[in-house]
Formats: sequence, C-alpha cells, structure tokens
Amino acid sequence: MTDFVPQWIIEKKRDGHALSEAEIREWIARYADGRLPDYQMAALAMAIYWRGMSADETLALTDAMMRSGDSLSWRGLGRATADKHSTGGIGDKLSIPLAPLVASCGVSVPMISGRGLGITGGTLDKLESIPGYDTHLASDRFREVVATVGCSIIGQTDRLAPADRKLYALRDVTGTVPSIPLITASILSKKLAEGADVLVFDVKCGAGAFMKTRENAHALADSLLAVARGAGRKAEALVTGMDEPVGRAAGNALEIAESVDILRGGGPADARELVLRLGVPMLVLGGAAPDAAAARAAMEEKLASGAALETFARMVEAQGGDPRVADAPEKVLPQAPAVLDVPAPRAGTVSRADADGIGRVVLLLGGGRRAVTDSIDFSVGVSHLRKVGETVAAGEPLVRLHARSGAEAEALAPQALAAFTLD
Amino acid sequence: MTDFVPQWIIEKKRDGHALSEAEIREWIARYADGRLPDYQMAALAMAIYWRGMSADETLALTDAMMRSGDSLSWRGLGRATADKHSTGGIGDKLSIPLAPLVASCGVSVPMISGRGLGITGGTLDKLESIPGYDTHLASDRFREVVATVGCSIIGQTDRLAPADRKLYALRDVTGTVPSIPLITASILSKKLAEGADVLVFDVKCGAGAFMKTRENAHALADSLLAVARGAGRKAEALVTGMDEPVGRAAGNALEIAESVDILRGGGPADARELVLRLGVPMLVLGGAAPDAAAARAAMEEKLASGAALETFARMVEAQGGDPRVADAPEKVLPQAPAVLDVPAPRAGTVSRADADGIGRVVLLLGGGRRAVTDSIDFSVGVSHLRKVGETVAAGEPLVRLHARSGAEAEALAPQALAAFTLD
Repeated sequence: MTDFVPQWIIEKKRDGHALSEAEIREWIARYADGRLPDYQMAALAMAIYWRGMSADETLALTDAMMRSGDSLSWRGLGRATADKHSTGGIGDKLSIPLAPLVASCGVSVPMISGRGLGITGGTLDKLESIPGYDTHLASDRFREVVATVGCSIIGQTDRLAPADRKLYALRDVTGTVPSIPLITASILSKKLAEGADVLVFDVKCGAGAFMKTRENAHALADSLLAVARGAGRKAEALVTGMDEPVGRAAGNALEIAESVDILRGGGPADARELVLRLGVPMLVLGGAAPDAAAARAAMEEKLASGAALETFARMVEAQGGDPRVADAPEKVLPQAPAVLDVPAPRAGTVSRADADGIGRVVLLLGGGRRAVTDSIDFSVGVSHLRKVGETVAAGEPLVRLHARSGAEAEALAPQALAAFTLD
Repeated sequence: MTDFVPQWIIEKKRDGHALSEAEIREWIARYADGRLPDYQMAALAMAIYWRGMSADETLALTDAMMRSGDSLSWRGLGRATADKHSTGGIGDKLSIPLAPLVASCGVSVPMISGRGLGITGGTLDKLESIPGYDTHLASDRFREVVATVGCSIIGQTDRLAPADRKLYALRDVTGTVPSIPLITASILSKKLAEGADVLVFDVKCGAGAFMKTRENAHALADSLLAVARGAGRKAEALVTGMDEPVGRAAGNALEIAESVDILRGGGPADARELVLRLGVPMLVLGGAAPDAAAARAAMEEKLASGAALETFARMVEAQGGDPRVADAPEKVLPQAPAVLDVPAPRAGTVSRADADGIGRVVLLLGGGRRAVTDSIDFSVGVSHLRKVGETVAAGEPLVRLHARSGAEAEALAPQALAAFTLD
C-alpha cells in the first residue's frame, strides 16, 4: 500500500470515519512485524474505543489479526468441527464436560483455551489439575487426538494470531480493553485461526462477568455473530447469567470433579443445563442433529450411557493425564489439607450468592492468579455452594472452603459469608 | 505518589472524569524522565482529545510540563516583561517589529520563538535571513541583551519544557494535535517557563490558520487566557483573521524588509494596525501606559521618531547580525535571482487572496519546510500582494514572485494566480 501514513489513519478513525479493509490489513501487518510502533497502535485503539467500528471494519480487523499467524484446517477429518467460547466467569467449567459430550455425539471439538487471570478461572488451569495432563500439544498431535478421540483441549501457541497477543498486552495497559470491536477481534482472530466450522459463544452477563449489563452482553454477542458469520462460519450465541457462580464449585480440581459429575449424568442443575444449551447449536449447526430436541436427546443419551464420560477419559489419557480421574476423581485430583464449612447465621432463602465475591475468595485461597506469572494451588477453592432460591436452616453450610490450612480457611470465612444474602 | 497505575488514569479520562492535579503532575514527571512509555501517553492524549480537560486540569498539565525543565526569572530587571504568542499564519512577521516597538516604549520583551513548518513561516527563520543573526543565545547572554537593548528574540533551548518537546513529537504522529487543552499546555508550558509578566495571544482564525472557525479560535483564546491567568500572569488575547496573508509579503528576507518598513512608520496598513493592537495590552498590562489610547500614542511616537527602528538595529547587532539591515535592507538581505509579476487577467476588485494558496506557493518556491530537516532559501517568496478590497486594472500585478530561477517563477505563476478571486 503506497502512501500509508499511520497518523492519517488514526485521524480518520478519531473523526468517526470507517477505515477501509486495505488500511486495516496494512496497519495490522505492520504492527505485527514491528514496523508500526506501540504508541500509534495505542492511539488508534483509543480512537476505536471512542468511535467504534462497523461490522465490516471489525471483520477486516479480525481477519488481519488472524492472518498474522498460522491457521489450522480440519478438512479430511470426515466430521464437522465445532468450538465454544465463553467470555468467562466464576465456576465456568462448561468447556470440560461440553467438549467430550459433543464429540461423543458426532461433532469433533478442537478447542484452544486460555488461562485464568484475576477472579476468572481458566480451562487450561483446571485441566492441569489432572496429574499428567499436557496442554501443550504440537499441532500434529492436537490433530491426531481430535481425529482419534473426537476432542482435544490445548493451550494457545505462539503462532496463533500473534498480533492479538501483542495488541492484547498493549490494551491491558492503555485503558482500551472494554471495546466491543477490539474484544471481538481478539476472540475471533484466535477462534477463526483454530479452523472450526461451527462457533458457539457463551457471553456471560452480570456482577461476576466482564459484561455487567444485558445490553452490553447482547452487543458483544451480535458483534461476535456478525464477524463469525461474515468470515463464513456457522455461529450461534447465548447470553447467560453470571450473577452467581456456575454450578456449586469454583477452584481448579474441584471444578474437574464437578465436570465428572456432569459427565456421569449428574452435577448441578444449572451447569448441566448450560452444557446442554451450548451443545445444541454445536450439534445442529454441525449437522449431527436435525433440531434442538434431537440434539438434546442425543446428549442426554450419551450422558446416561457413559459414552461422554468415556470420551473425556480417552481425551485425558491421550494428553498424558491419568484417565482414572473419570472413575474416581477424589483419588486422582489433589485435595486441599483443610476443609471448613461456612454455616448460615440464620435460616432463610438465598437471594444472592455473589460470583465476584466468591471469585475473590478462591483467588485469596490460592486458586487464582493476580499476575500472569503467579502459580496456582490446584487443590483449593469452594464447593457445596448454595444457589439462589435455595432455603437453608440456621447452621447449615452455605459453602465449603478448601484451603491450604485451617487458619487460612477461618480467616476467609467471613468474606465467603459476605458473598451471600439470605432473605 | 503511591498506587500510581497509569492505565487507571487513562481509564478515568476515557470515562470522562477530571484528573487530579497530583495525577497530572506525577504523569508528566514520569513521562518526562522516561518511566512512562509513549504508548500510555498516546492513549491518554487521545482520551484527552476526546473528553477534553477543564481549565484546572489544563493548568495542572501546563504547570507540570513547564516544571519538566528550567524557568527564567526577570526579577531585578527593573522593568515589566511582556511577550506575544501567535498561533501562526502566512506573512505573520508581527513579532519582529512588535518586540523592539514595545521595548522602546518601556516594557522589556524576552521572546523565545519557533521555526516554520509546512506553509506557516517561523520568526526564527525570518531573523536568520539577516546575515550573522544568532538565534541560539545562552541564557546569560539572552538576559544581557534584554537588559541592555530591551528585547531579544531567540530559539527554544533543550532545557525549556522538555516534556512538551517529547509530547509534541508524539502528538504529531498519533492524531492528537488539534486538541485545545493539549495545544494550550504546549504553548503555555514554554511561555510560562520564559517568565514574562504579561502574555498577549494572537489567535489566528480562517482559511490560512490552524483554527478554521471563529468558534474554535475563541475557545483556544479562552483556554490560553484561563491558564495564563491561573498561573498568575497578566494576559490578553486577540482573535484575528487569517483568510488573506498578513501584510503584502511572505517569505523570510521579504518579511524582514516589510518589518523594517513598519518600524520606519510605514508598511502595509493591516500589518501595522495588528502590531499596534498587539502592543496595546503589552504596554497597558505591563504598566507602561495607563490605557489603550496612551499606549497607541506612545507607539506612534516611537515609530515616527525612529526609536523603535533603532531598538531593532541594536537587537540585531547584539545578536551578531548586520545592523545596517535597519537602514538599507535591500543591501543586506539576500535577493532572489528571478523576479516575476503575476498580472491580473482582467480588471476587478480582489475578493479573495487565499492565505493557504499563497503559503503553498512560498513553500514551493523554496521558502518553507516540508519536514523539520529541510533547509530554507531565505531570499524567495512573494511581495506586492494585493489585498482584499483593492481594485486592479487588467495586467496590473496581483503579486510579485521572488524565485530561484525564471523557470520556477513561470511554473508557479498559475498557482499564485489561482489564490486570487476578482469580482
């Protein structure tokens, strides 16, 4: 592109005009290889935060960021591929039962996940609480596991959308994180590079989510769908609540145990229902079920028969983990040394179980990261969470703390209690 | 300042909140010494462009930028000090006659000026067309010239508001130049450091100016006044037209010759009138005249007596230049080899003499810089400009081109002609 003057492009966006596909493509190509400095990217990011981007611009940005690295292709697999992306929340372990469940129903799930930061847990951290589980598969091995087991969950490689990694780090320190076009491009540059035919988005909304309002959550869902579909993928989005945690457990090993419960056909009703709701579009758009009812029936059958649990065990084994986690998670997963039930101070109905507050307790117990370099204690967290609408007697536990010591558990009990409101 | 998290400050401004004085002070201190990277400054600059700044914030920003370097003090001089700042325009040589004129009336003028870039000329470049004139005086010598002659015009030193120099270069490449709080802080951080008691602003407005509308020009004038007065200086602002060039000449040596004409009591009526209008508040606020009428009368007298011209000659001499420029500018100043009159194609009244178009002709003749590293031909430019409202016969010159060759003059004649409209 001749006459590429970065400040003119910044000024164009600053003044509220749309950027052309060629301008966006050249910008990202230069940013990815270091010809365009961070300070110009920061100024443009703030202008995008302010002025927004059209669906066409966001698609061009996403595509350019995707093309900054490698892309995977699943042609030749003989089955449709689908993936799910969640914007993240407390207790959100849904990918872990969902991937093997959908795979057992005939749609392959090549899933590239992230780590947790702050109060939001990460799927990779949870899986690494299974002794031996390797989240760093080379792309040939990833392909082989997806082909033989039907699903695989691994971590991002350096070669997937490197422009996104660079821009994400910059946004984090320049006040340009909560911008819908920039979030869309960040999520989808990686998801499109991953190559799945079907993408299902779980946009979390509420006190414990990145998107606090339904309006913002729907705007992000619409943006994700427009770009995913614009890029030729089948896509669906759900906006789901994140005022209280998903399920009854938060913490890495504790969420693996709960995922096994779900795969056994049990588990908390809310988490099980979300898994099924997310699985429906993956199966229907993936061509493995004619409609939602058939998709649900297929999934119910695979949960009841143990086929989904078996697929999970095979995935864990294929990635180096101990497959006995599927049969006896309590024997395989690390257990916290101290357990403490936090009792209800009086009888009542739970009207609030604050996801944010519970997430902070998990973080303080040692189950999360304050900085990307922090290490995690897989064993700690919370379980037996009482859900909104449930009634408790005085002295009955509201939540169980799993801690590194009795003293730590005692110290955090008041904070855990404060996350609940009883009516 | 503890807990200084740059991205929180960016977010605060991004979300439309005012920054505290302590936040602004710490930000600029860290930016000036390199602890705060350009990319965070760029993001904040774009957020300021978007959200603006209150008068208090702009004052705090200006003060912090001023404190990044040295400040001059004129205590002990025994006279009030005043300076004038213009936002720049075509043919704007007003500082050159103004400084000695005001000095000859009893108010000292320690003036630190800039160079031209683009179509706007710079006072320093014009002065350097006088053989020997040195714009790089050390601060002791600057003080000595002001004390003995009454005025001195020099260039910026590296030690004056270095944060501004760094931020100005960044704004230039990040689309954050035309922001009133950032422009105000840039101008005034240097002007406050210069230490004059009185500051008079000439905010140019129109086709050939940075501020195209009267609304924007008045907003900048108000911002400059609020900050200058907030910093304890006496200040006045004029908003003056820049649709046609100031005076009848544009180009470095040609504008020195015109300045000498003004100092001799002649010169173009519009330029002479602007010098007087700008001198009035410098003298009145500087305490050298009780009111505008007295100030005008004093200046008229110093022009008529030759005292102002004599002060100019002494300033030129004190700075190493040839003082005979005051007596015979045509013998001292460089002359362009080729001169060409551009005739009016028909009789009529000039209804437009476009400053921007004439500025471009001067630039193309070699009298301006496209980049800061460009060198300038002092001799070239335009003179004998016909002013709006003047009547010309067919074939009478509309403007005279001073060029490096007859061919260059011929080539630019059509462009010069296109700057005029005859009714």
